[in-house]
Amino acid sequence: LKILVLNPNTSEVFTAAIQAGAERYRSIGTDVVATSPSSGPRSIESKYDQLLCAQPSLEVLIAREAEFDGFVIACFSDHPLIYAAREMSSKPVLGIMEAALYTACMLGQRFSIVTTGSNKGSPGVWTVLRRYGLADRCASVRTTGLTVLDLEAASDAKVRLRILEEARRAVDEDTADVICLGCAGMVGLDKEIQNELGVPVIDGVAAAVKLVEALVGYGVGTSKRGAYAWPHGKSLLNMNSLFEKPYASN
Amino acid sequence: LKILVLNPNTSEVFTAAIQAGAERYRSIGTDVVATSPSSGPRSIESKYDQLLCAQPSLEVLIAREAEFDGFVIACFSDHPLIYAAREMSSKPVLGIMEAALYTACMLGQRFSIVTTGSNKGSPGVWTVLRRYGLADRCASVRTTGLTVLDLEAASDAKVRLRILEEARRAVDEDTADVICLGCAGMVGLDKEIQNELGVPVIDGVAAAVKLVEALVGYGVGTSKRGAYAWPHGKSLLNMNSLFEKPYASN
Amino acid sequence: LKILVLNPNTSEVFTAAIQAGAERYRSIGTDVVATSPSSGPRSIESKYDQLLCAQPSLEVLIAREAEFDGFVIACFSDHPLIYAAREMSSKPVLGIMEAALYTACMLGQRFSIVTTGSNKGSPGVWTVLRRYGLADRCASVRTTGLTVLDLEAASDAKVRLRILEEARRAVDEDTADVICLGCAGMVGLDKEIQNELGVPVIDGVAAAVKLVEALVGYGVGTSKRGAYAWPHGKSLLNMNSLFEKPYASN
Amino acid sequence: LKILVLNPNTSEVFTAAIQAGAERYRSIGTDVVATSPSSGPRSIESKYDQLLCAQPSLEVLIAREAEFDGFVIACFSDHPLIYAAREMSSKPVLGIMEAALYTACMLGQRFSIVTTGSNKGSPGVWTVLRRYGLADRCASVRTTGLTVLDLEAASDAKVRLRILEEARRAVDEDTADVICLGCAGMVGLDKEIQNELGVPVIDGVAAAVKLVEALVGYGVGTSKRGAYAWPHGKSLLNMNSLFEKPYASN
Amino acid sequence: LKILVLNPNTSEVFTAAIQAGAERYRSIGTDVVATSPSSGPRSIESKYDQLLCAQPSLEVLIAREAEFDGFVIACFSDHPLIYAAREMSSKPVLGIMEAALYTACMLGQRFSIVTTGSNKGSPGVWTVLRRYGLADRCASVRTTGLTVLDLEAASDAKVRLRILEEARRAVDEDTADVICLGCAGMVGLDKEIQNELGVPVIDGVAAAVKLVEALVGYGVGTSKRGAYAWPHGKSLLNMNSLFEKPYASN
Amino acid sequence: LKILVLNPNTSEVFTAAIQAGAERYRSIGTDVVATSPSSGPRSIESKYDQLLCAQPSLEVLIAREAEFDGFVIACFSDHPLIYAAREMSSKPVLGIMEAALYTACMLGQRFSIVTTGSNKGSPGVWTVLRRYGLADRCASVRTTGLTVLDLEAASDAKVRLRILEEARRAVDEDTADVICLGCAGMVGLDKEIQNELGVPVIDGVAAAVKLVEALVGYGVGTSKRGAYAWPHGKSLLNMNSLFEKPYASN
Repeated sequence: LKILVLNPNTSEVFTAAIQAGAERYRSIGTDVVATSPSSGPRSIESKYDQLLCAQPSLEVLIAREAEFDGFVIACFSDHPLIYAAREMSSKPVLGIMEAALYTACMLGQRFSIVTTGSNKGSPGVWTVLRRYGLADRCASVRTTGLTVLDLEAASDAKVRLRILEEARRAVDEDTADVICLGCAGMVGLDKEIQNELGVPVIDGVAAAVKLVEALVGYGVGTSKRGAYAWPHGKSLLNMNSLFEKPYASN
Repeated sequence: LKILVLNPNTSEVFTAAIQAGAERYRSIGTDVVATSPSSGPRSIESKYDQLLCAQPSLEVLIAREAEFDGFVIACFSDHPLIYAAREMSSKPVLGIMEAALYTACMLGQRFSIVTTGSNKGSPGVWTVLRRYGLADRCASVRTTGLTVLDLEAASDAKVRLRILEEARRAVDEDTADVICLGCAGMVGLDKEIQNELGVPVIDGVAAAVKLVEALVGYGVGTSKRGAYAWPHGKSLLNMNSLFEKPYASN
Repeated sequence: LKILVLNPNTSEVFTAAIQAGAERYRSIGTDVVATSPSSGPRSIESKYDQLLCAQPSLEVLIAREAEFDGFVIACFSDHPLIYAAREMSSKPVLGIMEAALYTACMLGQRFSIVTTGSNKGSPGVWTVLRRYGLADRCASVRTTGLTVLDLEAASDAKVRLRILEEARRAVDEDTADVICLGCAGMVGLDKEIQNELGVPVIDGVAAAVKLVEALVGYGVGTSKRGAYAWPHGKSLLNMNSLFEKPYASN
Repeated sequence: LKILVLNPNTSEVFTAAIQAGAERYRSIGTDVVATSPSSGPRSIESKYDQLLCAQPSLEVLIAREAEFDGFVIACFSDHPLIYAAREMSSKPVLGIMEAALYTACMLGQRFSIVTTGSNKGSPGVWTVLRRYGLADRCASVRTTGLTVLDLEAASDAKVRLRILEEARRAVDEDTADVICLGCAGMVGLDKEIQNELGVPVIDGVAAAVKLVEALVGYGVGTSKRGAYAWPHGKSLLNMNSLFEKPYASN
Repeated sequence: LKILVLNPNTSEVFTAAIQAGAERYRSIGTDVVATSPSSGPRSIESKYDQLLCAQPSLEVLIAREAEFDGFVIACFSDHPLIYAAREMSSKPVLGIMEAALYTACMLGQRFSIVTTGSNKGSPGVWTVLRRYGLADRCASVRTTGLTVLDLEAASDAKVRLRILEEARRAVDEDTADVICLGCAGMVGLDKEIQNELGVPVIDGVAAAVKLVEALVGYGVGTSKRGAYAWPHGKSLLNMNSLFEKPYASN
Repeated sequence: LKILVLNPNTSEVFTAAIQAGAERYRSIGTDVVATSPSSGPRSIESKYDQLLCAQPSLEVLIAREAEFDGFVIACFSDHPLIYAAREMSSKPVLGIMEAALYTACMLGQRFSIVTTGSNKGSPGVWTVLRRYGLADRCASVRTTGLTVLDLEAASDAKVRLRILEEARRAVDEDTADVICLGCAGMVGLDKEIQNELGVPVIDGVAAAVKLVEALVGYGVGTSKRGAYAWPHGKSLLNMNSLFEKPYASN
């Protein structure tokens, strides 16, 4: 059972941390490969960044789809790549945000998301929560003021403390009973905070790897009827012919 | 890793089928035990039945909580037992309905539920879907006119055909891209229908076993803050002292 | 016109207070009987307690259904007993929470609920409000930190003051225009707080008695089509034959 | 206990039928007076009609507020008069639509509304149902093709049959378990259809009278904090000084 | 291209300010006429006021419908006049609240409304936002404590400062990215606050004039099918025959 | 006043038709330029296509942002480009879907969308409608079975008839009072269908041009606080330096 974890940004520090995080929880017999595209922004903090990383990420997926049994998109958002990847494969594909949220919903009634950025970014998270139908289950979205790239120094005690502080407030002030770490860059901090606070703490990378294992183990994959049907073919102007490959699956 | 699958009705045929279904998909190293209470109704089709099976089911949970790493409540509903069981344990507890629904949401955009009973019962299912925040993801709730106990003869070709027929309509007419089997008694029919229709078909018992494995494998359990805190103790009038045990966990 | 008010816990202090509260507002010609089951927990503060009181409460309803014209379930929650009782009778059945909420909606635009427990319990109340479709009408759920059994001393000035304080904050800070008392144990405090604050204060027991009178007076009862149809019969394993009686009504 | 039932249109046939319908269900000791404004449209079928009847209806309410203990606005809609009347009184005020809907919700899980007009008018009813939070409880809005004034001949067998037919379809095809009659002009048809179909059938006039009795009997009235506070005074240009009276209550 | 801006209250100060505000942004070739009814309340702050101004406002619309290409109802609310006016014309009709909200939604993700009155009035604004489907886009409704008529002195520095202060808090504390001025009497303050805060500030009168120009320029008007069909005719008791005119359009 | 209309696919037939459609309704003094990216898929029918066209479309926007006063993204969807473009400019940016929907909401109560594809694609449209808060205003999403590229022959009588047919059904069967054409390729068909059916028919390209004119005329643009703030800068691996330009605006 082989899982590809695609980090859509180009931070090698993050890709390495994601690899380590995924390995910590994989079952015996599961191989996990974390990778990132060969071009694009070093972090994803805007819709602009999100679109810049799309084409090089699609290239990775096209090139490696056949090798793996399931896929994880390691960006804590409702990234359009998740949906494109589902169109491009009949195997399971999970984003780390949805993986974290579904996991949280199985363990408590009210999760909080502790994330990077300022509280200006929270409304965008709530929009996704509503899309997933889980807004009523969310106690709070708490931002730490850290940038995504601050997390490259996630081993730094100050960074860890800042995240722990907001997680504690989520539990004590917002009555959260589960914490979701809101950025792939927080991978590896879950158990430390869980031990500190006494509530389940979910890292999306770990959660996604476990859920992809469960789906593959059950023998189910992405439905090829409806929303995730193979993409309908058409001519591509001035593009590498490799991009025609997903059309051929139809 | 040991999982208890509690069938809250007293049909031995169902308990045996559930045992078989759970074993089919368990990972290497996982032990699954299906059981049912020592008293109560042979099937659960009303709120009245649901409450009748509660007390004997609680007895099973109290007696066996310590032995297992996770629990499945094998009734396709938002059974209050799920919530009581979460109060009574710090280990993962999943109902088969939520397990099926979350699994379906990872594989498609629109699931249908194919279930027993007449369409008079569908509104109750929609109420639960709204509670879970997943009503917008549901293409249809299709009823087969079968009673729950008709499914004791689930190996019967006529019964299987009836279920297949409604699943096919869900895909063809309602644009469902995933099918959820809406009764524990349909355990074991998933792959047959999946092969026939070419879309993922989810049996809640199998889905729940895989998800409990994932949760245990990730090292997380039911949160003991908030909604699922240990129950607050109080005196019990004229009741077996065994029922005081969950209060003592606090 | 005879109304049975079933207190599903076993606190005799509460049953007596409920009897007194119901009598205060009954119309001429209405008889009210408050009662409680012969076994079970002394208060209901968890799902576990809720299920423990179910079976002995069903026994009361089975034994006494024929004697009365309408039924009140005196627990401020969306107790499953309400729905089971509706399956077991063609007469009106009301829970005191829904009775209080509908009454509040006829008198103001925004009610608050003042209840026992800590604010950890509020999310569960909001879940019920959403189920009833009334979450947008709720200004706040305010908890007093009192346990249910603290209310056995509801005549105590300190207890009354604590409730009054939160009700005042609901009006002054949360812009509530109606107050609902969120526990059967607060029966009898309504007029005192109403006089103090100058907004309508609703006790669910009183509200439910008045609404059941209205329904009986209009000649309507629980619908026996759809969700509250008589329960479908089946064999009961190791249970008192009295529990077969509701099946026979079908 | 005196209740004023204000029919905001000027059809004398309707006012007489409403008087009769209200009297049929009033309790001993309740006086009911049905009345209508001295000018305005003979029926209300548009927003234009709704606004035309407003000023003469306000005159009735100003003149007679002191005489009565509670008020019913006998138009099956979310008529703005209901809200203005609540600002003008501290006594209970109910519209017949909300009275019918709350009553239906106490008796079943899914009501249907059978009303006049063509299905072009149904979306407006659904807008009100969403405002009340009760859209999820509504199985269908069925229109009869009858105009409001066709109901002046409600004793006519053809008119009755048309309404019965749609009510029957609501139960049989839409799985409604309660029927609400969607026009004040249908007053008096409730029991006939209830006997025919075997589900509760709610006439809003009767329901509103019973609910106002319940509210007055419980000693509660419209909240004068928040949305229904007395209207804030201001100068009125070229208007009868009688319209200044509600400002003075402040 | 001629636009009628109807101020439904009788404050001449407001009508003059609305005329000036509308003229500031009209395109070359657009004529704008602000007017108000010949009788009614000097401001609209309650449902009672809203109904008092309805009949004289309808008179203005009936008399002048033929002269204009589009209509603006200059009251920041979901005034029933908007809907009646749409029934009475096949030309575009816009309320200033909806005009401001749609405009805000094109420029940002989260608007705040800064309005008159106390925070007791905010729930009513939220009810309208939900009706429009835009509640999730609203960061806050902030009230200034000013009465509507305080705004007749909107040139007063203290009044302007009070509004600016709340707008600033909406941006800084509530993360609003667009401000809507919540009262026709705030017309003319938009650019001053926009310059101060650096976010778009929307005056509903200006927004409505621009949107009506856009609709007329595109050659579309109010649909005469469905909700805004011409009103169905009927006899009017004791009313000026001028009120029969809209029936004749059918 | 100059407006750039970006067709994100590479069909020259569509770009020419969009240019013609936009010119038909532009005001005197408005210049409109329709353009498309230099590479990418000839039509957009999947998430995969949507992401393929993103990078070349961003290039167009970066290169030409300074020349124009406002922007239209001519793809009938909630295309992520709309949001990226808003981050990249302080001028107005509109997608043609939102432009059509807001316009429809000003003219009727219930619009229908008539679009390409099969009814398998409708759920995706509903997801967007819910995101915009306008699902309750949508009478139906009707698909024609046409592919996007079939519309390159939109002058063909058979294609026009197919679209007209579904629009007629939307009005007659689904009670729509406004029709929105659900694909940029339908530009130019609006008035023909409007004349045929007698309800407003909205082409998103025309609607967006008129709304951008209105916004520019009012002197408002995209808010640079909150969701659409300038994108935060970071290093780009192996990308053309032109993609750094939007970071510099911050």
